[in-house]
Amino acid sequence: MSSTAYMLNGFDVANTHKVEPHMQELIAQRAKRLGPSYKLFYEHPVHFVRADGVYLYDSNGTPYLDVYNNVPSVGHCHPRVVEAVTRQMSTLNSHTRYLNEGILSYAEQLLSTFPQEMSNVMFTCTGSESVDLAMRVARFNTKGTGFIVTRNAYHGITASVAEISPTMGPHVPVGQHVRMVKAPDAYRTAPGVDVDTEFAQEVERAINELERHGIRFAGMIVDTVFSTDGLFPHPAGFLRKAVDVVHQRGGLFIADEVQPGFARLGDSMWGFQRHNILPDMAVMGKPMGNGLPIAAVVAKPELLVEFGNKVRYFNTFGGNSVCIAAAQAVLDVIMDEKLQDNSKNMGAYILKGLRELTAGHSGVGDVRGSGLYLAVEFVKDKQTKEPDGEFALKLVNALRENRVLISATGPAGNSLKIRPPLPFTRENSDEFLDIFKMTLEQIS
Amino acid sequence: MSSTAYMLNGFDVANTHKVEPHMQELIAQRAKRLGPSYKLFYEHPVHFVRADGVYLYDSNGTPYLDVYNNVPSVGHCHPRVVEAVTRQMSTLNSHTRYLNEGILSYAEQLLSTFPQEMSNVMFTCTGSESVDLAMRVARFNTKGTGFIVTRNAYHGITASVAEISPTMGPHVPVGQHVRMVKAPDAYRTAPGVDVDTEFAQEVERAINELERHGIRFAGMIVDTVFSTDGLFPHPAGFLRKAVDVVHQRGGLFIADEVQPGFARLGDSMWGFQRHNILPDMAVMGKPMGNGLPIAAVVAKPELLVEFGNKVRYFNTFGGNSVCIAAAQAVLDVIMDEKLQDNSKNMGAYILKGLRELTAGHSGVGDVRGSGLYLAVEFVKDKQTKEPDGEFALKLVNALRENRVLISATGPAGNSLKIRPPLPFTRENSDEFLDIFKMTLEQIS
Repeated sequence: MSSTAYMLNGFDVANTHKVEPHMQELIAQRAKRLGPSYKLFYEHPVHFVRADGVYLYDSNGTPYLDVYNNVPSVGHCHPRVVEAVTRQMSTLNSHTRYLNEGILSYAEQLLSTFPQEMSNVMFTCTGSESVDLAMRVARFNTKGTGFIVTRNAYHGITASVAEISPTMGPHVPVGQHVRMVKAPDAYRTAPGVDVDTEFAQEVERAINELERHGIRFAGMIVDTVFSTDGLFPHPAGFLRKAVDVVHQRGGLFIADEVQPGFARLGDSMWGFQRHNILPDMAVMGKPMGNGLPIAAVVAKPELLVEFGNKVRYFNTFGGNSVCIAAAQAVLDVIMDEKLQDNSKNMGAYILKGLRELTAGHSGVGDVRGSGLYLAVEFVKDKQTKEPDGEFALKLVNALRENRVLISATGPAGNSLKIRPPLPFTRENSDEFLDIFKMTLEQIS
Repeated sequence: MSSTAYMLNGFDVANTHKVEPHMQELIAQRAKRLGPSYKLFYEHPVHFVRADGVYLYDSNGTPYLDVYNNVPSVGHCHPRVVEAVTRQMSTLNSHTRYLNEGILSYAEQLLSTFPQEMSNVMFTCTGSESVDLAMRVARFNTKGTGFIVTRNAYHGITASVAEISPTMGPHVPVGQHVRMVKAPDAYRTAPGVDVDTEFAQEVERAINELERHGIRFAGMIVDTVFSTDGLFPHPAGFLRKAVDVVHQRGGLFIADEVQPGFARLGDSMWGFQRHNILPDMAVMGKPMGNGLPIAAVVAKPELLVEFGNKVRYFNTFGGNSVCIAAAQAVLDVIMDEKLQDNSKNMGAYILKGLRELTAGHSGVGDVRGSGLYLAVEFVKDKQTKEPDGEFALKLVNALRENRVLISATGPAGNSLKIRPPLPFTRENSDEFLDIFKMTLEQIS
């Protein structure tokens, strides 16, 4: 890579001459107008002009099966979301300092999917803004500044949130008030050791560390399926001991549901529910509006009383009528199309298929997942479990050439990240498994 | 106010019993679901169900003239924006890691309104995210942390941006690396003193202060019309000396165009252009998508080279196809409907009208503005210029009862803030001036 910014599956602009002329032109325009922060996926980038359901179409009309994008979670261009947004945009798009009904009925319905103790919601525009707000609320209530995150966590891009996102790489310093813990990786946990006990001990050590440095503990935030650490859904329940430690030590537990939330994991609407825990706050974003920028913090109301009365917080676009209309349509579609069930059933079907397909493959260390969020972990050796990021990247790029969109995850990028839109059918799953099998054979 | 969070023109929930029963119900629902951070405007809140052009309609179908909302800047529910968003949402809503044309043509057109030295743009979702990013870029390039802002500045709500937003009130500490300067208030500048010289001296002193404390200077950020400090558009050009000082001392100058930008001030597309200065970065937001969450940082490209290559920054919704389509429609409407000219002409017309109407009023200290962004400043005494926030607030609420939406600004809240959507016509202006005259007489 010409660039040193850490990114899995990125295009190296030094290879621009290798791609089609019309792409070269677009890449040159990007460099000229948008600058080097804008990275493309794949050794051979893709250019889409249309999308529908679980397919994206390039400028030749060629379809690509989407097994990666979690923002258009109820399917690309879902007609009910389009219709709801169009209707609301034609009627009213107001902020929250005028009274409006839509935000209240949506809030009620959203909160009904949470434990009753978490009965307040505040709306923002992005997951980053939500994490930033949750951190402010945690610090305000605990009078602490110290946070605990996992070693390869990603929580967002504001200055404050970047400090708790070690996956940003060496040029974005982890905050001096932040301590990192080993993620609860069941595949790599030593035999005889419980994942939950080990993780709880890690957290306890980190809190001790913070306090030894005079940093008051504010809380722990984790993605409840550990998306960027490598995807660790099992055994469900393993978070409970660590969360108990956080609470015993006076901290708050924030569930980052930006990726696992909104029925993605099949078992439940929210990732934390699989662990039978009660977070103090939960943050959500990406799939909430199927692509319209809306995000939220759901919290125990007692955390917002003094904060809300003393700290001015107004998010201009947060909770505006149009973004709420999109979110309402998404929630309705999840319920009406039974997408949580579909995620559970299709996820189990794909998981079984992947296990069968890879059973004899010497490079596949583990296949795991929950609902339509799955990982195939590649290793150089099944005994040492040495990660094989190179092979995973090769597979990601070969799948792209075979018109399946996917990416990789984990600190070594050695786990295939399988995360299609939720209305993925049996037919889509078979198409994916067939192409996966063929592609794996091509490159093995 | 039951709440101590600093907010001009806020509803006190203790007065809920005084409003109509259907509003009481909505207010109770807000308290229950959204919590105390959610404040309403006005002693007597408003409940809107529909909007069109420069009018909002309450649940009885009663129209209110909008002389305040700057987000629906090309008019509420503008059909071209609705049409563009609907079309794009039905076609494709992609992030920036796939190639896409819309973002590039929009970037080109947006950048063509800037000086050629500012030739890169990065997209975010909110003004807060843009300021947060600009601060990160400034710190990365200067290796400094120190910022200078005006005494009543507001730049946004992330943890990092709240630290440079003193208007947030006593419970949100101004950062220890931040110094505040007196805003360049021509109305209150002593006779014989130049606003520009005084402001430049304030900035110089603040930089010295930072350095004396061992804090390296990163830059200065100002709203180029000083919206929350009280609205100071004149004399155009007064920023130049201060910006020269910032540059001489190694800092960057960031123009906050969230409120003044997109033709609001009539003279120019961007507020900084009235001052004949070249910012290092400009941030924009609110009116950019007429209510869809889109915002941006425009920068000199040399500031983004190392940052972009070393720091991973990907904004999931930033620059997505649908928000870009909204922004493109807004820019097209500004150009096609000649809204900058309209802002200039109607602004001048309203300014003249307000000056005539208030000429004999003992409480009006100053009437000023640029384009469709005007202020009427109320004082208890024209000699001492003691601010009369109470009277301004009374007028704001009386105007609301007369169905004109407006608010106040400034540290004492004593300046009426007049900021209608840009397609405000001569007829709308006359309606406003008539109701303003009547209301002022009612309460004086």
